[in-house]
Amino acid sequence: MSEIADPFLHALDAYRTAVRAKDVAAFLAIYDESLEVFDLWSEWSQQGLAARRKMAEEWFGSLGDEYVVVDIDEAHSTRSETVVVGRAILTYTAYSADGKALRSLDNRMTLGLKRIGESWKVFHEHTSAPVDHRTAKAILQRPTPASG
Amino acid sequence: MSEIADPFLHALDAYRTAVRAKDVAAFLAIYDESLEVFDLWSEWSQQGLAARRKMAEEWFGSLGDEYVVVDIDEAHSTRSETVVVGRAILTYTAYSADGKALRSLDNRMTLGLKRIGESWKVFHEHTSAPVDHRTAKAILQRPTPASG
Repeated sequence: MSEIADPFLHALDAYRTAVRAKDVAAFLAIYDESLEVFDLWSEWSQQGLAARRKMAEEWFGSLGDEYVVVDIDEAHSTRSETVVVGRAILTYTAYSADGKALRSLDNRMTLGLKRIGESWKVFHEHTSAPVDHRTAKAILQRPTPASG
Repeated sequence: MSEIADPFLHALDAYRTAVRAKDVAAFLAIYDESLEVFDLWSEWSQQGLAARRKMAEEWFGSLGDEYVVVDIDEAHSTRSETVVVGRAILTYTAYSADGKALRSLDNRMTLGLKRIGESWKVFHEHTSAPVDHRTAKAILQRPTPASG
């Protein structure tokens, strides 16, 4: 019955767990039915849980026996009693069934969460990568910090 | 002394007015000093008002005698007493000094605002365009709705 310390970190953890398990139901449980997504890929916006379910089914289904690990960096949030805004940098790394890292990309993620009774649900998700001004190409890897 | 009807729409209107006037001070007045930006262009994230000032000075300065009109579509927000999350589709159109439209691009924008005393300030801004999966290029124009 205790208050969740940070609804944003809780949602990110549930997201990571659901992606790792390729569990569509657990993935959808993060979101409110009023969901609106500005996703990194392809579409300007997506509304509602049905679109989210379709995306998750296609994503998880496309992996075959591979799996994806989500690493979370620079996560922090701004909170009120009923609305939370969080932002983080996420790294998605795909692994083969025998645990070999295959490919990786970084995303910026902003989540809006609202309190629904005793729980918190994501009503808005915005993921993106910055775009190179000269080539109009997305920069899908964050530069590593200078080492010296 | 009355409550602002929608802090998000108010901030968007101030943003549009400041961009049209190329007014750096009016532009910065929208933001809180805790600002963190995930911007469409180039960088993974920007912190603080000094980075925002530099961006605005370079942007407005690059325009010469051109000016930019921001059109706002699909704006809506989710509110609490102290935190608001808003999202919208913005179209930036550059005009020549004699009023000829030169170029245009669309952005998705998410803003997080918090109440500071009697006013609201943006503490988080996330702008992006979706990315084509095949080419990794940003899609900088939103498709026009099908006409029949």
